[in-house]
Amino acid sequence: MIEPLERAVKELKRLPGVGQKSAERLIFHLLTRDEEEVDRLSQAIKDLSTRVNRCKVCGNFSTGDKCDICSDSQRDRSKICVVSRPWDITKIESTQKYDGLYHVLGGLINPIEDVAPGDLSIGKLINRAKSEEVGEVILALEPKTEGESTSMFLVKKLRPLGVEISQIAQGIPVGRDLEFTDKATLGKAFEGRRDI
Amino acid sequence: MIEPLERAVKELKRLPGVGQKSAERLIFHLLTRDEEEVDRLSQAIKDLSTRVNRCKVCGNFSTGDKCDICSDSQRDRSKICVVSRPWDITKIESTQKYDGLYHVLGGLINPIEDVAPGDLSIGKLINRAKSEEVGEVILALEPKTEGESTSMFLVKKLRPLGVEISQIAQGIPVGRDLEFTDKATLGKAFEGRRDI
Repeated sequence: MIEPLERAVKELKRLPGVGQKSAERLIFHLLTRDEEEVDRLSQAIKDLSTRVNRCKVCGNFSTGDKCDICSDSQRDRSKICVVSRPWDITKIESTQKYDGLYHVLGGLINPIEDVAPGDLSIGKLINRAKSEEVGEVILALEPKTEGESTSMFLVKKLRPLGVEISQIAQGIPVGRDLEFTDKATLGKAFEGRRDI
Repeated sequence: MIEPLERAVKELKRLPGVGQKSAERLIFHLLTRDEEEVDRLSQAIKDLSTRVNRCKVCGNFSTGDKCDICSDSQRDRSKICVVSRPWDITKIESTQKYDGLYHVLGGLINPIEDVAPGDLSIGKLINRAKSEEVGEVILALEPKTEGESTSMFLVKKLRPLGVEISQIAQGIPVGRDLEFTDKATLGKAFEGRRDI
């Protein structure tokens, strides 16, 4: 294989879920496309490293210093939803069920992978939560061990500030049969039952 | 989603087998990589349109006017293997069973998709086959209807030149059980049986 193809294979194989076969398939596809289309893809990828920053307030993806959500005067500034990664925001926004602000921790406390509270954006969250206008902090971390222990850590830090602290509900996914729901989830669904 | 992310999703979704979810997954992965790695991928993709040409002799991928195989004085110039697409060459080369030259047709005759003999690099093949030094033309086209009819067309054109014409063998794939081999392939395997 000629050098530019070898190199494209090598770089594509670094992507998650892309092996030799699928890298070749992508390249052979691109080789049949016109130059303009290939350049647009190349530029779009380059822009991910050059044009995408993190919001200085909340850590969300942003093209400027402050993200679209933090800049939006329509958002409810009394609520901060805490997520571990910026793409969780995209997911939550897609539900259209939340109109407050966000805070990206940048990970979860994980002693095994050597992630300590100091590695996360926790001090910044505490400072934001101290502000007069903040009334509620909503924890939306992954319902797994690291997410739970990070939530517990945050509760301990936030409790003294007198702010309301909540956690998003765990339960049976919409459309899922009880039969195929794991015990732990079913248990959480019972604990979190609500009057109707 | 901010504009650079939206645009990267849009461009990635043009690739075969990449939907919204996998485009997002690739982008979120790239956003965690350092700038240098993202730029290398972007450049490798750009090079596919700017640095990869077609060999003026055989139609193979090449960085110059003539591909590595046509330029290689060690290759057997008495044989030309005819393939439909340049990536078939990569596949055949990987077998290390062939040391001759190639010719890329650029497709197969297909009346339904409006591909006529004039759309393929057939005149060029005939001219090459007329050369004194060429003794054999090997047809390695896909064993499906369009491949068979294109092979038949080429045989008709090449026969008058007095060159030997052969076709790569069809039969049972290595490691495959007879039980799971389709009738047509098994029939070809019988027709093509050899003394041992």
